[in-house]
Amino acid sequence: MMGAPLGRLLLVPNGLDLGTETEVDLSDVLPKAVLETSARTEHWVVENAKTARAFLKRVDRLVPLTRPLQALSICELPRPRKGSSANETPDLAPLLAPARAGHDVGLLSEAGLPAVADPGAALVQAAHTLGLTVLPMSGPSSLMLALAGSGLNGQNFAFVGYLPVEHATRAARIRELDQWSRRQQQTQIAIETPYRNAALVSALLEHLAPTTLLCIASGLTLPQGQCRCMAVSSWRAKPPIIGDKLPAVFLWLGT
Amino acid sequence: MMGAPLGRLLLVPNGLDLGTETEVDLSDVLPKAVLETSARTEHWVVENAKTARAFLKRVDRLVPLTRPLQALSICELPRPRKGSSANETPDLAPLLAPARAGHDVGLLSEAGLPAVADPGAALVQAAHTLGLTVLPMSGPSSLMLALAGSGLNGQNFAFVGYLPVEHATRAARIRELDQWSRRQQQTQIAIETPYRNAALVSALLEHLAPTTLLCIASGLTLPQGQCRCMAVSSWRAKPPIIGDKLPAVFLWLGT
Repeated sequence: MMGAPLGRLLLVPNGLDLGTETEVDLSDVLPKAVLETSARTEHWVVENAKTARAFLKRVDRLVPLTRPLQALSICELPRPRKGSSANETPDLAPLLAPARAGHDVGLLSEAGLPAVADPGAALVQAAHTLGLTVLPMSGPSSLMLALAGSGLNGQNFAFVGYLPVEHATRAARIRELDQWSRRQQQTQIAIETPYRNAALVSALLEHLAPTTLLCIASGLTLPQGQCRCMAVSSWRAKPPIIGDKLPAVFLWLGT
Repeated sequence: MMGAPLGRLLLVPNGLDLGTETEVDLSDVLPKAVLETSARTEHWVVENAKTARAFLKRVDRLVPLTRPLQALSICELPRPRKGSSANETPDLAPLLAPARAGHDVGLLSEAGLPAVADPGAALVQAAHTLGLTVLPMSGPSSLMLALAGSGLNGQNFAFVGYLPVEHATRAARIRELDQWSRRQQQTQIAIETPYRNAALVSALLEHLAPTTLLCIASGLTLPQGQCRCMAVSSWRAKPPIIGDKLPAVFLWLGT
């Protein structure tokens, strides 16, 4: 017996302005095709239902939604347990039931690409296990925009996520990653919760070697966005002021 | 004495269809604002002048160029020496002379984001040294699309570039990266020249552990694009057929 064709899991990018008090025109950061596909998609699995509805309202202003927002199915991803790894898969198959019934399902996070420095990987794994087509769609990745903008090594790099918050542990981790970066000539990329940006900058300026090149990229794609790269010794002479509401990316390369 | 305001270095993304015999509509992969900015930019530094002109012709069909193509200044980046690192900076300042005279300069590679797995980082460094504003613009990154589509760990990952071509060295490198990935729970991302895709797949299936999860993502953003992730043991039972003209990204995570 032949079933209906399966729906796909669409990986839908979001803008990068979450929590910044600035609203970027989505057509500045997303291709038209992504806006059109989003406007047609009726089944969503999202990091946060409230911000997903805000995204869909912004899409609607550019490309009218096929069905009214209230008629769409919007399910939240289960909250990831702290320290869980991408290959622990709770039973997410029910979230993909619409795809098994022939409807595309959109996966959306609060900012940027889903499942990159964001939840969603387990759902993508579940889709692969079910034999669904997974379709990643073009959109902004703050990590890659910052990497391109840094001028640091883009042929070899690692994203290490968040650094430890506790002072001594963080200092040790920064020194370890600085040495690793220098030895491997591998750019290291880290992020921080915006209200801790200033504390992380202080720690990086204290514990990275003076010759290490450090890039601080904040508010990328926003009018107030900045992307500066210089040696740690130069940053120390002219410490940056970085907003506590702007998402920022920190990159360094030991020289 | 006040000088004229400086121009910026714009990091302009390209589509991902280079060499694939498929031409994607650029509005499927680039935001309208990127097309508009590209149409206005008169000074370019590019990986390849011929493909840059092809890009600008495609832009022109969507947003007419402000000045005719022949009137634009298009300079090629110096070819990177094999094994040179991102922080060796030959004198690239002359390429940025238009920015010092107040004009924006667009940096464009043959596919995707400039300076990510592509040349251009040294020019970005030179721009920072000259105090120019560096503006990375939203567009497709095949590495991040593949990472999102893999369902592998997107909280900790490394891009390791090309693997060695020589058999024994490549086998050793694959085993080393497999173990590292398992120990660190860090997704490894590699690329290959398309005509060597099949050889790399064979080597990965031979040398990765059977339980390692392997994602093969080819032709992303193209109609014939594919993104599949499963255990190496499952791939061995059903080896993939992968085009020798399609750009592909290979990702794995030891479990």
